[in-house]
Formats: sequence, structure tokens, C-alpha cells
Amino acid sequence: MSGGLTLALDAMGGDHAPAMVVRGANLARQRYPQVRFILYGREPEVLPFLRRARRLKDAVEFVHTDDVVRSEDKPSAALRAGRRSSMRLAVDAVKAGQAQAAVSAGNTGALMAMAKVVLKSVPGVDRPAIASFFPTLRGESVMLDLGANVNCDAQNLVQFAIMGNAFARSVLGLPEPSYALLNVGSEDMKGHETIQDASAILRSLALPGRFQGFVEGDDIAKGTVDVVVTDGFTGNVALKTAEGVATLYTEFLRRAFKSSLFAGLGYLLARPALRKLRKRVDPRRYNGAVFLGLNGIMVKSHGGTDAFGFAHAIGVAVDLARHGFMDTIRNDFEGLAKTSLATQQAAAV
Amino acid sequence: MSGGLTLALDAMGGDHAPAMVVRGANLARQRYPQVRFILYGREPEVLPFLRRARRLKDAVEFVHTDDVVRSEDKPSAALRAGRRSSMRLAVDAVKAGQAQAAVSAGNTGALMAMAKVVLKSVPGVDRPAIASFFPTLRGESVMLDLGANVNCDAQNLVQFAIMGNAFARSVLGLPEPSYALLNVGSEDMKGHETIQDASAILRSLALPGRFQGFVEGDDIAKGTVDVVVTDGFTGNVALKTAEGVATLYTEFLRRAFKSSLFAGLGYLLARPALRKLRKRVDPRRYNGAVFLGLNGIMVKSHGGTDAFGFAHAIGVAVDLARHGFMDTIRNDFEGLAKTSLATQQAAAV
Repeated sequence: MSGGLTLALDAMGGDHAPAMVVRGANLARQRYPQVRFILYGREPEVLPFLRRARRLKDAVEFVHTDDVVRSEDKPSAALRAGRRSSMRLAVDAVKAGQAQAAVSAGNTGALMAMAKVVLKSVPGVDRPAIASFFPTLRGESVMLDLGANVNCDAQNLVQFAIMGNAFARSVLGLPEPSYALLNVGSEDMKGHETIQDASAILRSLALPGRFQGFVEGDDIAKGTVDVVVTDGFTGNVALKTAEGVATLYTEFLRRAFKSSLFAGLGYLLARPALRKLRKRVDPRRYNGAVFLGLNGIMVKSHGGTDAFGFAHAIGVAVDLARHGFMDTIRNDFEGLAKTSLATQQAAAV
Repeated sequence: MSGGLTLALDAMGGDHAPAMVVRGANLARQRYPQVRFILYGREPEVLPFLRRARRLKDAVEFVHTDDVVRSEDKPSAALRAGRRSSMRLAVDAVKAGQAQAAVSAGNTGALMAMAKVVLKSVPGVDRPAIASFFPTLRGESVMLDLGANVNCDAQNLVQFAIMGNAFARSVLGLPEPSYALLNVGSEDMKGHETIQDASAILRSLALPGRFQGFVEGDDIAKGTVDVVVTDGFTGNVALKTAEGVATLYTEFLRRAFKSSLFAGLGYLLARPALRKLRKRVDPRRYNGAVFLGLNGIMVKSHGGTDAFGFAHAIGVAVDLARHGFMDTIRNDFEGLAKTSLATQQAAAV
């Protein structure tokens, strides 16, 4: 299935790079033994780790570059000064067709700026968005935008819905995904004008799956719909709020088990079950946000992740490439453009 | 401390009213033995419960009305047709000075509309906001707006900050509360224009406490600041997202303990500690959202709560009345108006 797949990796992006990137790729090879990598980074820093990564032997091409985008660099500065950076070279490799996807744990703003300039948007997409999976009571759902666009109009939200829908179909394997707009109530009249307009447009489109109108914040974790659509401001706040509450619960639970001898014994007995729980909500297993709407597959790993988390981000890139996501999203927007053209022509007659 | 305090209760608001309201008041009397109540509702439905509420004997005045605001009523319709409703009479009682605060678990939009029309805003407040406490790693914090205003400009956000600040000082008893705007990043240049402008104005005001600029979604549960300020759209989504994740964790934990015999035994041993944890995050203990910025104390209970939760909402109303919140907020806005007048006069010279 994964025969012939090559991924471009920014070896210098992330708090624990390059060790975490090399080890992550090494781990990912275990699950995807046929995937190959091109690594971009500073030779003296990367090679020592690369030599110790046994599974990467004969599976990696290494390209040296001195330049690195730092986490504090502004996107505009990174665009201008980072043309030979490890991040940019990874994006360029996707553009040139040398790699089918790129993965970086570096500066999000810089990566998005480079991806937009180099890869450009899929025809029909005004603004790419950031999407990610998250665990729910029902399984897994997708949310977007998670922070690429703090101001969105109705058309942006509609395009996010189309993109998220394509993502759920190709990667989650749901032929008829349910999708909805995140709002302050599920009743039709709730929310501001932008979201009201977006809802009206989505009702008129013939997308695959079921448009369920509006959902509320608590529907995210419930898994009420497969795709939660929102602007980048709200989506970013919701995602981080959820992460914060998860951390709070984990900490409260830890304190509870430490609060008495009996509780400690109880923990020992329940440990295997609690480990399964922890595994299920482990944020590293949901690492790998996707930049949707670009002519190429770009996956952004959390900057603070470890090799295990980075391997998961690589997995997301592999899934997208394998499941033909680029064809799905291009076909969807092409089909909608034709329908809308036909409607306009019919209206003009 | 609570001598002479009278609360107006909408006996018909909420999914389990009037039983829940009467029992909640009865429970609250245990904690606040000197508080008195005026209950508004349908006599045949309320009296049977009232007769069984022993602690309310000689502590309740009951006022019969046939009219009730339903949860599906639009605010405008409730305003027009609900002049004799149990909800409206409770608000009117605050206006008339018969009660020092009102509590309702009914239709939020209708309650806010009535409160605005009857009580009007504190001078200097353009739009009242909804605020609530929530548990954090550090203790308790306040967030506003939680849904009263889906579109906010910079001035609205600034006023929310002033109101939240006054709330934290009087009810949380923090003379120097820390406060911040909820944003997609903590760096100064992050976010949209509205929040940038609000931040600039807040930096120029001499409010008590520390303005900490921007915080992110995960700072809510961390308790990074005492007061989290945001627009009603984002605040509502963040609050409900947090509730959803809390429910998800509780459910995952329940499943983990049920997954094996050992895990079940472990649960039995750890049960007292886990009960303490559950108590700590029990949403009923955080029931009671406050409508801030009105000439009167209005507390909105969650519609689906039980008597225990409603008693907590009553407790919030008692705390606000006892700690002189109305004086604090009026003085704050008056002081700011004087400062700004002085600044304008100085500039005009």
C-alpha cells in the first residue's frame, strides 16, 4: 500500500529536534516499512542520530542546510530570509514532486506562510485551514480551523466544511460524514450573521454526508458529528481549552490516588485499565495537524512532542497520501465550481 | 451576616421545576438560615412541595401567577407576553427593592431581556455579560462573557474586564485580581483587531489588580489568571467545550474501572479519594451564572440542575448581595468616568 511513498522531514523543527525527528522517523518505519524519507537539516547535528537509527538505513536521503527557522521568527521574516532553511526545503520537495508530503514540528506561522507561497491553494479555496483529529465518546472526529484564520467570512467557513468533509471521507474512511458549524446553540436562529450565512450556503450545497446545522462546544467531545467547522479563533480556543481540561483531570486524578494508602493500592490494582485510558487520551496519539486546501500534503507536528508523537504526525501524512486526499479535495471543489457555473448559466438563460 | 436578605425565586424555571426550586431553597436555608425567599409560580404546582419543605416554614412568601416563560419562547415574545410570568415578577421584585437578588433556572435569553428592560445597565456599561466561576488547578477563576453577546467590540471587552475585576474583588475576595483577554496566543501581536484594541485600552486604565495581556484556552483550566475576559461567542464555546471534555473523562474513567475485576477492586479501594475528586469537579457546585452590569443581582441557574445545584445558585446570589457587589461595580465605573472626564478636560486645556 505504501510502496513508493517519500516524505520530506524538517529535521530542525521542534523543541527536541533533531533527535526527536530522526527517532520519530525510525519509529514510523516500524509501522510503514516501505516509506522513505528526505531529511533536511544541519549535518553535524543530524548525522550522529541518523547513524544510530537502524531502521532508517537505506531509507533516508539526507540534505544538509545551515539555515533554520526559529520558533520566534515572524512568518514574513521566515519567508524572506528562510529560502534555504530546512523547513522551506521540505516544502519545496513537495512542490517539486520529490516527496508526496512534508512534516515539520517547527514554527506554525512560518510553515503556513511557506506552504501558501510555494504550494498555493487548491482552485476554489481562498484560505487554507488547519485541521486535526481528536478523541470523542464515539471514536474520532475532525475539527477545523484550529488557528490559521482568526477572521473568517461565511465563504471561508463553507470552504472549511468542504475541506473537512473531504478529509473525513478519505482519511477516516467515512463515505457519508456528518458535519456541522460550531455555535453557541443548536437552534437555527442562534449565533452571528457570518455563521447564519454559512449555514444557509451549506444547506444549498450537495456535499456528500449529512449537514447537521449547528453544534455546541460540548458536542466536540461527545462526537456528535464527524467534522466540526469553525473559524480559527474559536477553533484554537476550543482545542486548547479541551487540552487544558484534560490536563486538569489527569492532575486531579493523580492527586486523588496519592491522597491515601488505600487510594494508592487501588491505583496499583487498576493500573492496567488506567494505562489503557491514558493511552486512549494520549495527546501524542493525536499529534499531526494538517494544512488543508493546499496543492500538497503538509503536516504540522506539535513543537513540544517526542519521537512517539512525531511518528504519529508522520502517520497522518502517510494516511493522507495513501488515501488519495489530494484527488478527493480537488475533485470536490471542481465539482462544486461546475455546479455553480451551471446554475449561473441556467440563471442567465 | 445574611440578616435581612430576601431573594426572589422563579419557581417555574428549569427542567425539574417547581420541585427542584423549592427543594433547592430548602437546602440553601441550611447554609444561610437567615435568608428569606419570595417564590413566584403556579399555586397548585408549587404548594405541595412548599408544604413539605420544613426549613422554609416562616421563611417564604408565596405569590401565585398563572403565567410561565417556556424554554422555547423567544426573548422578544417573553418580554411582550410574559409581564405576569413567574420570571418577570422575580425580576420586578429586585427592581422594587422587595428582594436583593433574583434566581431563575428558566430561559436564559428571556431572563436577560427582562433584566435589561426592568433593571437597566449600570451607568458606563453598554451591554451586560454573563459570568461564572469554574475550577482550576489553582482554585477558582471567573470567565465572562459566556453567551450574552455574540458580537463584541473593544469597548464591550474592556467593560467586561472591569465588571469581572469587580466581581473577583467582591465575591472571590481578591483585592488585586489578575485578569487577561482570551486569545489564540499570548504574544502581543496575536489575534484580531478587536482584541488588540481592547488590550491597548486595558493597559491604559488604572484598574485594581494586574492586567496580564493575553491568555490561551489551556490557561482557563490552569487558572493562570483570576478573570478570563472574552466575547460571548468564544466564551460560550470554551465553557461548553470544557464541560464536554470533563464528561468524556468521567465516562472513560468509569469504563476503565469496569473493564476488569482488578480495576473494579481498585476502584473500591480508591473510592473515597475518587469521590473527593468528583466532588471537586461536580458541575452543580459551579452552578449559578451571574448577569453582570445590571442595576440588581440576577443569577441564572443551569436549566437541567437539581436541588443541590439550585442551592448553589442561591449561594452565588447571597454572596453577591453580602459582599456589596453592586456598590463595587457602580463605584468602579463612576471612578473611571471621572478619570476619563478629567483626562478629556486636561487635554482640552
